[in-house]
Amino acid sequence: MIQFTQERQDEPGVTRRLFELSVGGETVPAALWTPEGAKGPRPLILMGHGGSQHKKTAGIVARARIYAKKFGYATLAIDAPGHGDRISREQAEAMARDVGARVTGQAPAGFTPERLKQMAQRTAQAVPEWKAALDAVLSLDFVGDDGRIGYWGVSMGTAIGVPFVAQEPRIKCAVFGLAGLRPGAAEFEAAARSITIPVEFVFQWDDAVAPREHGIALFEAFGSAEKTMHINPGGHMGIPPFEGASWERFYVRHLGTAETAAKALEPMATV
Amino acid sequence: MIQFTQERQDEPGVTRRLFELSVGGETVPAALWTPEGAKGPRPLILMGHGGSQHKKTAGIVARARIYAKKFGYATLAIDAPGHGDRISREQAEAMARDVGARVTGQAPAGFTPERLKQMAQRTAQAVPEWKAALDAVLSLDFVGDDGRIGYWGVSMGTAIGVPFVAQEPRIKCAVFGLAGLRPGAAEFEAAARSITIPVEFVFQWDDAVAPREHGIALFEAFGSAEKTMHINPGGHMGIPPFEGASWERFYVRHLGTAETAAKALEPMATV
Repeated sequence: MIQFTQERQDEPGVTRRLFELSVGGETVPAALWTPEGAKGPRPLILMGHGGSQHKKTAGIVARARIYAKKFGYATLAIDAPGHGDRISREQAEAMARDVGARVTGQAPAGFTPERLKQMAQRTAQAVPEWKAALDAVLSLDFVGDDGRIGYWGVSMGTAIGVPFVAQEPRIKCAVFGLAGLRPGAAEFEAAARSITIPVEFVFQWDDAVAPREHGIALFEAFGSAEKTMHINPGGHMGIPPFEGASWERFYVRHLGTAETAAKALEPMATV
Repeated sequence: MIQFTQERQDEPGVTRRLFELSVGGETVPAALWTPEGAKGPRPLILMGHGGSQHKKTAGIVARARIYAKKFGYATLAIDAPGHGDRISREQAEAMARDVGARVTGQAPAGFTPERLKQMAQRTAQAVPEWKAALDAVLSLDFVGDDGRIGYWGVSMGTAIGVPFVAQEPRIKCAVFGLAGLRPGAAEFEAAARSITIPVEFVFQWDDAVAPREHGIALFEAFGSAEKTMHINPGGHMGIPPFEGASWERFYVRHLGTAETAAKALEPMATV
């Protein structure tokens, strides 16, 4: 049973609720957006933020509001281990400077063995936290569980999201991106290969922290029959706005909306 | 002044007109789809068919009808040199068998020096034919010339379309695909590099006639600031239906519709 710590109008037509989960001795802060006055089951999108970001980072908030208003969706986000309200403001600012320098190429990408080990530990911790958060919100009667759950997460949201989605059969489609498959990352590769749901994979061709060949290797690893890689020029922070519109259509295609079921497209692409 | 050889209702709400152009001593058959009763200027899409296909090939017809009904667009298609009504039925059937065997990998891709020379000659002939066809339809008061012209062409439609679009400043955005940049194709590469309009480039990862590295090289060559490569698994004939829906949004984003101007997207992709 979720005890909400805050419930407020996020913007007209959208309600934002905050709550906390206790998972493995840790407190995990979570945020849930739904249409105002939502009743009954609806599609649910889980959004995993990027490194140094948090559950209420600007892009997640923007999408959660639009998804609620346009499609009647619920959106759930949680602070990843070592992020958001789980660290101090000073720690968050220092991390933002560090990550900012790396993703813009001003500092080395810095995937040292020590760092890779930290990332693996963070992912191992994050996966059961996501599962607990998902269990919790599916018990809410205004979210419900009618089998229409999608995942969205790029960069660290993919590093955590791929192992999570691989272990979570309730998720029906996923957007990943801004990440690659490094040689030797055997567990991550096995997780990607075991994913068979539809995937839209967005990749920046000049990403300072995800080399092209790693991005293509991750796309190739996904076990999905339906998977698309969208490559755009530019760096880690430069995903063009039309990709945001493409994600909307991807989710509506596979999950429908609160009011309508998912529906296959006409075979318009005949060439 | 165009003399139409046929004008008929293609399906309810859509008019199809046929006409012929005389270009360099050759007769070039053309087809034009518009909304029924169209008056005044509207966006125009030029559709270049694939090898062994023709101006009324199924995919072109399907898109032309939908574009007319949903967006009020005009669509123009012409038979490429050595295709459609420019050859006999027997020649067309033999070519369809030959191309079919190559694109499905049942026969070698067969880019011999002789074949590459033939392709270059065909392109050199096709470019002025496209220009003449475009000049002709822009003089029609129900198509008009308000500067909203897009190109669509994959496979041979890209082989011809890249040099054509490179030389045609009236075209404002283009969909290309199912083709690559072969080492040594200096003229084709120069044409791709000179293209700076928005490009959506669709590519099949297991294409028997367009190797992956050639596809990526062509994507990299485009001089456009806005260019996206969509990679999907499968062969030359397997572009998934949702790419057709993506093309619609690409054109509406850049050309608007008959009723509305093009409009920039909100920056929804913030991550």
